[in-house]
Amino acid sequence: MHDINLDHLFNPKNIALIGASSTPFKWGSIIPLNIFKGNYQGNVFPVNPGVETVLGHRCYPSVEDIPGPVDVALIFTPAPTVPAIVEQCGKKGIPFLVIITADFSETGPAGAALEARVIETAQKHGLRLVGPNSMGIFSSQTELHALMPPTMPLKGPASMLSQSGNVGVQMLAWGTDEGVGFDKFVSSGNEGDLNSADYLAYFAHDDATRVILAYLEGIGPGMDLYPIAREAALQKPVLLFKGGRTQAGGKAAASHSGAIAGSNRVFKAAMHQAGVIQIQTSQAMMDCAKAFSNLPLPQGNRVGILTRGGGWGVITSDACEENGLHVPPLPEDLIKKFDSLLPSYWSRGNPVDMVATISHDPFLECLEILANWNDIDAIIALGAVRATVKFPFSDKVTGPPEVTDTIKKALRFRQAMAAQPDAILTGIKNLTKLTGKPIVAVSTGPDILHRETLRDYQVVSFPTPERAVRVMSHMVDYAAFRRKNALHEN
Amino acid sequence: MHDINLDHLFNPKNIALIGASSTPFKWGSIIPLNIFKGNYQGNVFPVNPGVETVLGHRCYPSVEDIPGPVDVALIFTPAPTVPAIVEQCGKKGIPFLVIITADFSETGPAGAALEARVIETAQKHGLRLVGPNSMGIFSSQTELHALMPPTMPLKGPASMLSQSGNVGVQMLAWGTDEGVGFDKFVSSGNEGDLNSADYLAYFAHDDATRVILAYLEGIGPGMDLYPIAREAALQKPVLLFKGGRTQAGGKAAASHSGAIAGSNRVFKAAMHQAGVIQIQTSQAMMDCAKAFSNLPLPQGNRVGILTRGGGWGVITSDACEENGLHVPPLPEDLIKKFDSLLPSYWSRGNPVDMVATISHDPFLECLEILANWNDIDAIIALGAVRATVKFPFSDKVTGPPEVTDTIKKALRFRQAMAAQPDAILTGIKNLTKLTGKPIVAVSTGPDILHRETLRDYQVVSFPTPERAVRVMSHMVDYAAFRRKNALHEN
Repeated sequence: MHDINLDHLFNPKNIALIGASSTPFKWGSIIPLNIFKGNYQGNVFPVNPGVETVLGHRCYPSVEDIPGPVDVALIFTPAPTVPAIVEQCGKKGIPFLVIITADFSETGPAGAALEARVIETAQKHGLRLVGPNSMGIFSSQTELHALMPPTMPLKGPASMLSQSGNVGVQMLAWGTDEGVGFDKFVSSGNEGDLNSADYLAYFAHDDATRVILAYLEGIGPGMDLYPIAREAALQKPVLLFKGGRTQAGGKAAASHSGAIAGSNRVFKAAMHQAGVIQIQTSQAMMDCAKAFSNLPLPQGNRVGILTRGGGWGVITSDACEENGLHVPPLPEDLIKKFDSLLPSYWSRGNPVDMVATISHDPFLECLEILANWNDIDAIIALGAVRATVKFPFSDKVTGPPEVTDTIKKALRFRQAMAAQPDAILTGIKNLTKLTGKPIVAVSTGPDILHRETLRDYQVVSFPTPERAVRVMSHMVDYAAFRRKNALHEN
Repeated sequence: MHDINLDHLFNPKNIALIGASSTPFKWGSIIPLNIFKGNYQGNVFPVNPGVETVLGHRCYPSVEDIPGPVDVALIFTPAPTVPAIVEQCGKKGIPFLVIITADFSETGPAGAALEARVIETAQKHGLRLVGPNSMGIFSSQTELHALMPPTMPLKGPASMLSQSGNVGVQMLAWGTDEGVGFDKFVSSGNEGDLNSADYLAYFAHDDATRVILAYLEGIGPGMDLYPIAREAALQKPVLLFKGGRTQAGGKAAASHSGAIAGSNRVFKAAMHQAGVIQIQTSQAMMDCAKAFSNLPLPQGNRVGILTRGGGWGVITSDACEENGLHVPPLPEDLIKKFDSLLPSYWSRGNPVDMVATISHDPFLECLEILANWNDIDAIIALGAVRATVKFPFSDKVTGPPEVTDTIKKALRFRQAMAAQPDAILTGIKNLTKLTGKPIVAVSTGPDILHRETLRDYQVVSFPTPERAVRVMSHMVDYAAFRRKNALHEN
């Protein structure tokens, strides 16, 4: 096992910003600005010779002039200056550097030679490097936003390592849109020193990290990912999104991060064996981050489906079977229970189709019956929030009394409907807690709704049933891996 | 070929609403209200004995009392009353009925017997039925919103037939969210008389319909879909989303629409042979509707990729290859052209990675070079709208002058960025027109952005590259089918 303690890298007390400047639109000013505006909980020491202050903070001519110890130095200066700066940081005894500067091994042999000198100097002093060519790091504990874009991630249980800065920071931004919070993030850049396996090993045993996200393009020759991935997967879900799965992707990756993909088939099989959750699309990555961060794992693959429309029940059932989930038939005693709640023409089966109705309906009662059914392990609940019932009748109500009266009644009904989600979503949250079964909600309304559902009620919701099923399928697979290995360990 | 002319069904001059009422929350009042509020361009005749007016409109005791001809009667009355009403409509010479009333064959043998009587009566008079158990019809030409939910679809080139009312009207609502417009819609219900094949055949030769959407759960024994589907696919894209593909889905479908799915493998192969575009998820259905409604077809499978970040280029390339699209290498002369526009460390290949930069960049110039490249047939352009560049610095700018100055400059930069999409999106639209090559934009911002992009600039955009690739792959396959059959016909 790699066992590099990165506590001080992610949660430093003192950071130096080498090459910091007040000139707008340079990384040397953008990243410091993000750090200051992000309310970083430690001390910041800008370093730039001949500069008095940077963004209102006292600036030092060199790291050696900083009083007291420094845990992390971020470097923004041009590539040719970096070896000498690393030497100075080594003398100062700084344990971690984050090299934002690009133009190293990713640009060709000359850059690779320069990077080798940087690594050599670092190793001489025993200091460890993030990057070069990193987009930065984030940590919620110390509120360290040492990132290129002005992203302010939500706090939460997910930590991410990414071999692409752009892909990584996009996930952070989507997280903010979707209600998914992060604890730590690192853009690993060229991985001249610290690599994805190191971050993965650290996240595996980091208590604040409950879900690991990884975007990888290539596995370096010295990186023995399998045992680390397996060790991590035994602790917590590891969501791996692999770029460079194909020839075209591999070629693009080679020109991007210099990564050599190797055989994808072999890699895929190894990661499966390791218990890693292999994600196929960027949307699925965020969907899974949301579910794994917020829901208990299912004990098996049997799913109960609640729906307000037959067609959506069919679509959900198809997706379940195509993704290895089982939709068991409803036993007679449960059919009787539902009979007493639903109109005579309900589906009398699983999916439980409550049948399209415009009156208030016993959604929560049905959900409770399903959740307490011993033969299922998880629930997909469609129509939890009925945002699609939009009444295009505004307050400008005109027409004869009959019309205005009807419309006024419709508007009052809409208000009552708007109050309903509160009860339903609180009910879903409580049922999950009570039964330990994951309930994924589906509401075909706009995406913004799903963020609010999660943020305000801790209910995981998706705009289509297929996305809910895909997420559930990954949860079932991972839970099976955990059960199997818990048995082996006993 | 089925050759039933449904012009008068979708665009009637006079409609009767049998069982119309002013009592809120009954289908008999909700659908009439949607029709009135929807600004229907014809005459409406509510029918309900003993009622003076319905929603402010004069009501007639029976269809026979309506002066002049009626093209379509909608029926909301309870199931047992329907046979007698159909008889009256037959005597009146009404050519089309839309039976909203449920409780027919979908509920069991008694309902099936009643439905058989309805069909028999209709056939005796030569009138044709939509439903029973239909959620209604929509037509943009006459602004006929004879639908259960108060959905007001956008006008556009897509027409849809759906064996599930809920799934169908959800697509209409999503269309409004996404900027996809509809010309006609029918919820086919139990298909006691007119069936999916009839609607498909009609849409195939309906000039106002340029894209056909179909949600099917089952193919009735008398429905010979293959020749009709093929004939339709030769005219225009047919997007088919099939429910009941699996055992679980088939079981749910049987309890929903009574549909018997049959062998999915055989059906799938037949539809492929017919040139039908087979859609796998509800999200893909709407994504494809958007692209096929708004973009020219590609002449082949060769894709040029423009990106602002290497990792996203890798992800897009992987998705292309996995979906049968080719990402050809960039020839030397094009590399030279890009060299003059981009920083030295750009990818020098396809994907063209413009390299993350915060300055204004030559996005449109690069796109033009790609679009004029003879060796590609289509473009996926990532980062067309940079909505994710959010500056979390509000107008509440505080701090020392250096900080406020920097933030003020950042705010001005943001304003300049906000003006940029206009030029870029107009440029994309013009380049598509000029080169005839479909350009699909990808912007990782929130979904709402994509609706605005389409609505305001006629640019098709998706929040992830994988969704863009999936859509492009369907377009490539369909274009190949059309080319192949054009050759055969010559």
